[in-house]
Amino acid sequence: MSYSYNRLNKDDVALLMVDHQSGLLSLVRDFSPDDFKNNVLALADIAKFFEIPTILTTSFEDGPNGPMVPELKAAFPDAPYFARPGQINAWDNEEFVAAVKATGKKQLLVAGVVTEVCVAFPVLSALEEGYEVFVVTDASGTFNQTTRDAAWDRMSQAGAQLMTWFGVGCELHRDWRNDIEGFGGLLAGHLPAYANLIQSYEQQSLAHKR
Amino acid sequence: MSYSYNRLNKDDVALLMVDHQSGLLSLVRDFSPDDFKNNVLALADIAKFFEIPTILTTSFEDGPNGPMVPELKAAFPDAPYFARPGQINAWDNEEFVAAVKATGKKQLLVAGVVTEVCVAFPVLSALEEGYEVFVVTDASGTFNQTTRDAAWDRMSQAGAQLMTWFGVGCELHRDWRNDIEGFGGLLAGHLPAYANLIQSYEQQSLAHKR
Amino acid sequence: MSYSYNRLNKDDVALLMVDHQSGLLSLVRDFSPDDFKNNVLALADIAKFFEIPTILTTSFEDGPNGPMVPELKAAFPDAPYFARPGQINAWDNEEFVAAVKATGKKQLLVAGVVTEVCVAFPVLSALEEGYEVFVVTDASGTFNQTTRDAAWDRMSQAGAQLMTWFGVGCELHRDWRNDIEGFGGLLAGHLPAYANLIQSYEQQSLAHKR
Amino acid sequence: MSYSYNRLNKDDVALLMVDHQSGLLSLVRDFSPDDFKNNVLALADIAKFFEIPTILTTSFEDGPNGPMVPELKAAFPDAPYFARPGQINAWDNEEFVAAVKATGKKQLLVAGVVTEVCVAFPVLSALEEGYEVFVVTDASGTFNQTTRDAAWDRMSQAGAQLMTWFGVGCELHRDWRNDIEGFGGLLAGHLPAYANLIQSYEQQSLAHKR
Amino acid sequence: MSYSYNRLNKDDVALLMVDHQSGLLSLVRDFSPDDFKNNVLALADIAKFFEIPTILTTSFEDGPNGPMVPELKAAFPDAPYFARPGQINAWDNEEFVAAVKATGKKQLLVAGVVTEVCVAFPVLSALEEGYEVFVVTDASGTFNQTTRDAAWDRMSQAGAQLMTWFGVGCELHRDWRNDIEGFGGLLAGHLPAYANLIQSYEQQSLAHKR
Amino acid sequence: MSYSYNRLNKDDVALLMVDHQSGLLSLVRDFSPDDFKNNVLALADIAKFFEIPTILTTSFEDGPNGPMVPELKAAFPDAPYFARPGQINAWDNEEFVAAVKATGKKQLLVAGVVTEVCVAFPVLSALEEGYEVFVVTDASGTFNQTTRDAAWDRMSQAGAQLMTWFGVGCELHRDWRNDIEGFGGLLAGHLPAYANLIQSYEQQSLAHKR
Amino acid sequence: MSYSYNRLNKDDVALLMVDHQSGLLSLVRDFSPDDFKNNVLALADIAKFFEIPTILTTSFEDGPNGPMVPELKAAFPDAPYFARPGQINAWDNEEFVAAVKATGKKQLLVAGVVTEVCVAFPVLSALEEGYEVFVVTDASGTFNQTTRDAAWDRMSQAGAQLMTWFGVGCELHRDWRNDIEGFGGLLAGHLPAYANLIQSYEQQSLAHKR
Amino acid sequence: MSYSYNRLNKDDVALLMVDHQSGLLSLVRDFSPDDFKNNVLALADIAKFFEIPTILTTSFEDGPNGPMVPELKAAFPDAPYFARPGQINAWDNEEFVAAVKATGKKQLLVAGVVTEVCVAFPVLSALEEGYEVFVVTDASGTFNQTTRDAAWDRMSQAGAQLMTWFGVGCELHRDWRNDIEGFGGLLAGHLPAYANLIQSYEQQSLAHKR
Repeated sequence: MSYSYNRLNKDDVALLMVDHQSGLLSLVRDFSPDDFKNNVLALADIAKFFEIPTILTTSFEDGPNGPMVPELKAAFPDAPYFARPGQINAWDNEEFVAAVKATGKKQLLVAGVVTEVCVAFPVLSALEEGYEVFVVTDASGTFNQTTRDAAWDRMSQAGAQLMTWFGVGCELHRDWRNDIEGFGGLLAGHLPAYANLIQSYEQQSLAHKR
Repeated sequence: MSYSYNRLNKDDVALLMVDHQSGLLSLVRDFSPDDFKNNVLALADIAKFFEIPTILTTSFEDGPNGPMVPELKAAFPDAPYFARPGQINAWDNEEFVAAVKATGKKQLLVAGVVTEVCVAFPVLSALEEGYEVFVVTDASGTFNQTTRDAAWDRMSQAGAQLMTWFGVGCELHRDWRNDIEGFGGLLAGHLPAYANLIQSYEQQSLAHKR
Repeated sequence: MSYSYNRLNKDDVALLMVDHQSGLLSLVRDFSPDDFKNNVLALADIAKFFEIPTILTTSFEDGPNGPMVPELKAAFPDAPYFARPGQINAWDNEEFVAAVKATGKKQLLVAGVVTEVCVAFPVLSALEEGYEVFVVTDASGTFNQTTRDAAWDRMSQAGAQLMTWFGVGCELHRDWRNDIEGFGGLLAGHLPAYANLIQSYEQQSLAHKR
Repeated sequence: MSYSYNRLNKDDVALLMVDHQSGLLSLVRDFSPDDFKNNVLALADIAKFFEIPTILTTSFEDGPNGPMVPELKAAFPDAPYFARPGQINAWDNEEFVAAVKATGKKQLLVAGVVTEVCVAFPVLSALEEGYEVFVVTDASGTFNQTTRDAAWDRMSQAGAQLMTWFGVGCELHRDWRNDIEGFGGLLAGHLPAYANLIQSYEQQSLAHKR
Repeated sequence: MSYSYNRLNKDDVALLMVDHQSGLLSLVRDFSPDDFKNNVLALADIAKFFEIPTILTTSFEDGPNGPMVPELKAAFPDAPYFARPGQINAWDNEEFVAAVKATGKKQLLVAGVVTEVCVAFPVLSALEEGYEVFVVTDASGTFNQTTRDAAWDRMSQAGAQLMTWFGVGCELHRDWRNDIEGFGGLLAGHLPAYANLIQSYEQQSLAHKR
Repeated sequence: MSYSYNRLNKDDVALLMVDHQSGLLSLVRDFSPDDFKNNVLALADIAKFFEIPTILTTSFEDGPNGPMVPELKAAFPDAPYFARPGQINAWDNEEFVAAVKATGKKQLLVAGVVTEVCVAFPVLSALEEGYEVFVVTDASGTFNQTTRDAAWDRMSQAGAQLMTWFGVGCELHRDWRNDIEGFGGLLAGHLPAYANLIQSYEQQSLAHKR
Repeated sequence: MSYSYNRLNKDDVALLMVDHQSGLLSLVRDFSPDDFKNNVLALADIAKFFEIPTILTTSFEDGPNGPMVPELKAAFPDAPYFARPGQINAWDNEEFVAAVKATGKKQLLVAGVVTEVCVAFPVLSALEEGYEVFVVTDASGTFNQTTRDAAWDRMSQAGAQLMTWFGVGCELHRDWRNDIEGFGGLLAGHLPAYANLIQSYEQQSLAHKR
Repeated sequence: MSYSYNRLNKDDVALLMVDHQSGLLSLVRDFSPDDFKNNVLALADIAKFFEIPTILTTSFEDGPNGPMVPELKAAFPDAPYFARPGQINAWDNEEFVAAVKATGKKQLLVAGVVTEVCVAFPVLSALEEGYEVFVVTDASGTFNQTTRDAAWDRMSQAGAQLMTWFGVGCELHRDWRNDIEGFGGLLAGHLPAYANLIQSYEQQSLAHKR
């Protein structure tokens, strides 16, 4: 039973950001708030950097779930945006699915809150329709580690691939030479430990130039 | 090898609550007592909300294992209830299996104590008989995390799907518009963090009305 | 340097509940939401059971901090309640301090959100004024374990005693014979593991009576 | 792809205890010493209780690896015992394999130290030869949790089932009525929390008899 | 401010075992059941080995708290034993205190369940009366780590010394030559990792004798 | 022995930022990189907000330790800045101490990398000279949790107070009315969970205005 | 669906060491620095001991990623070494792949930094080309445990086997008699706990010889 | 109550290494074996670097406790070395104490196995005699974290200062200029993360020289 490595390809991929809303984010406890905010915004920056079609959706924005995180709105001002009237599984929203199909892509990146519902349900629906689905695990959050473990297992057994924003960025970029400064800047902005390395390096370069 | 997402469907599903007895609950240490109690009762409320046929069973109620949790008895006064005379695997009890079959459902939610025995054994038996089986992982408890990890792996590899009470509720409800107040109340009662969101929201609504 | 054990005495003690508000509770991550809710309500039940003068206070109820938890309002309908106009340290609010002094008690139980601010500040202020101060640690929450550890150390070094709701209840009750059913019921309501013991015990008693 | 639940059957199963030696046990750090000792001896008691053919093996007993745990020797005085002259994978020892085959069983329980070598290697070898293999995970130990996780994944993906001594005992016993006192005693001896339940129960029974 | 190291002295010390009852033990979750059982019995063996006057006490044996652990009863058949009629703090029971005083010892070892109540209260009372108090921390258990941390801090700040059964045994024994076989046997019986060392050592000694 | 609560007072306090250098930051592993970066920058923002005299220092900037974090340089362009030629304890650098004394403040906030050296040494030196010293624990990092625990204990026992950036900000601000928007903005920028609350609140306010 | 255990065979295997560079190592936080250094060097020693063809590769050595760890260079002075000009997936570098193919081996051991990129990408590529791939999990590091869990799952589901350096060494060695001193020395050098066993053993042997 | 910072001074300090024996090291489980070995050897290197009088002692070398770690013997070939005939507290061995006193030092560094006995007992004895005592916490190990926490608390409350080998080295060195290469080399040898920084730095320096 041979394995085929269908890599993320920036021309084949769309990103679905599901229910990153200010109220729902209060429920996320499998990441520290700083880490989670950083992960979500890093994923957004990746999508912009690679010009990946991105689709936003929320549930009950006007109620306790709260509005979509403003940074996401700002990042994707022209992205299709679906405030679902009630469907829990975004894939049950016909307009949302139509938008996904309109991208013409066969690979889907999915991130959202909470993992076992807002992420897992559309992931399983998309798998059924034959999409290659990649869960951006660290831009998806939920109540606790136990819940996450169960959700990851369900999605993985169904055929979804578990990734992280950093892995997604690197698999899309393929080769640093495609834009070394741009991609390096993106990483530095979201990986403080990598930014430190750059800092030390540049300071020393500067010193030698003097 | 295509994947088919057979979602939980409230018309196709039955719930099996296995051995949630006061003595056995003392053995559960992979959840805090508060969390576990809440999870079990949340699952019960979900079953009632969606009017899912529920079957209760216990082992050796009259001995150290203790009686079934009284809240469960109260929640399902008319449910089939089997005090097994000795079978460890509930599926070895013919009356229990007959009751399961009598529901006419093909999807089974299973929760119980302890996970690697009282849950895993009937889960594997039901899978063999062709049921779609969904383990409600957080309403199932056991001695420690290591034991749980092994039990989850065994059930997952056999084809069971690992879920949580919240995921189960959302997959069954499908659309908030089916009963927004009812389902919201259910969640608020079992997710204190969500109740807080509602609280803040309602207070502010009230303020603006004044 | 002799040690004097000035025990909590129900006639000498007042309880201060500081900023248990729906918004602020979203910030608490050193307890699971179920555990924390239970701890706070257990403390409230203890105060009611022993008829301990209780003083409530909040900060910016009308803003993002949200309203006081409704269960607390309901528990203490007649308690002095101070919605502070801006003081972060409740002890900087003259009316609050006046109410504390008006109780005539020399022992103070303090719980609140977040631990290193809303609890620690009035605790340190009260210590300076000569009160015996007992922090109800598990009815006080904050951002994470590191922050909690620092806050506990600061209060402990200043002379505050670190307790928990269960310890407080037991130190106040002194002797089960003072009201065995009342106190037992209180514990059973907030300690699921203890409720299980009672359950098993009562079932067996019943069986023998038959 | 239908699933077949080939349960552990006491007439079909043999137990392989691999390298539980006093020196090697010093290396086990994914369990506390008390827990691990208890788990290993519980498994031994189960094998004796169900009269399961058991095969013991060690590597380099006379060197730093040390002798087999004396309790195991005492438990299985007549069991085939192979002090391997050098083979790391017990399955590379022809006499060991001959003894396994001589049992005529098709199900193998395997436990040992360390998990990723002394357990995993014979497990994979036995799977290749068509045995149904069950890893007794909590009677198998290794250097740390990371190593364990990798070893479990490798064995699980190859088709081994991950179990625990408690699950093994219960799956073999099937029905309490087969020997309620014997099996209960076995559990009480290795599950202090269960022993406590029995204690409370019996004391109360006694009280009512008086 | 000079420090005086008043070591545990076997002629100066008494042991108080408070509320190690089968029901209450179900509540202990800051140790694994195997570890906790071992710790409590190790402490008992130490008391017997050094012939330390030991006083046992329980609360509500006939109710859900359950009977004292039978191993403790068996270990100290002639020890003073007080089934308190209701006092939560054992030190509030006059007979118990009289028995403590009757030992004529000035150093007290205290262990019990649960730490922040059954241990902490008599510890603080005894400190007030001028006793040197040593908490046997690992033979004392409670609901969770947070509760334990608070209880330890309160007792430590009041002047109690935090020890463990192993430290207690070693501080009492002073010199291996006082009874090398007896004390070694005691340790081997309760420290599996130490028993392994002995095993390896003795096997090698034996080999060389041959 | 009465306790005096000498609160942080913005007119009495200076901040010492010790060795937050890009190389040394690579060593910090008791916080996630995202959390630690946020904590350090939050402390810097607090100092700027309250116009607290701030003194910066580094060790061996030109070597592997790397340059001070650029955000700190940018935050305090005019602050005294001492690149120590070799002294490990910043307090051994006369110019640094002179600058501290020149501030005329008696309260010192200290943060740095690594905690047990770059923070602890000047903290102990300053305590000896009679300063009130407050360690900003979460803006100070080190190799691991064990090292941190030891360092915290040493400083606490010497009389330093353990705080966090949030506690520092709140103790300095005293009353929200002093600048509600400014302080709220500061918190929102560094507490994503608090920013979410504000977000939800403002959205709802906006909705009602429409 | 039968399982075939294609064991690691020293004549069939090549080792790929990917991006163990001084800068990138700063990012590894799922192992302690001591543990990780030891694991990487242990793997190198294994490759040398079994004379396994080893291929080294780095990315951007001259930039912040830093040079390959000098111990690896020293260990494999004659190994093919590819400083990739920009390809993130080493398998995208034609020379690297050519070197892999030139080894003529069908089994590949892969280790590197960071796990979800530098390890996972070439692992998936090699699987696609039909290699048997073994991930040396503990000689591969990344940002945190969550990221690691996702990466392991992706590789495992694709068919890679998760191993550790110790498992690799033992599976290659097969039989201690092949070189008992050499292999024992290798283990002693990298397993301090095993070195201790040898120490005790040899001291006792020596004593008996005297 | 003023605080006096009596810093570690290389002319005033002696080091006591207590019972780092191959058998006893098997018992240490509050550090990974790699970490602990590194910590102990780092402390030894510090003592040699600063020419600190060092005293070694062991208990029952010829029995299961095993010989002193050979690296320590090699590090201190001429150090006083006391194989205690039976005293558990090294301070009960008159020759050991005489050797300590003969050093003429008033500051003592103490490290050993296990923390709550072999370290704590001589620490408390030395405190009583007026020494300034510094526990090298990370070169001291014991059974588990709980035991360590209790031991640290007891020693800290008695007046010992909790340090780590890195803190000790830095407090002794005072100023890098005293020997920048020597001390840097020492750190690089025991802090892999620091060695990485040096590596990156030197490579870049070299590059610029070319």
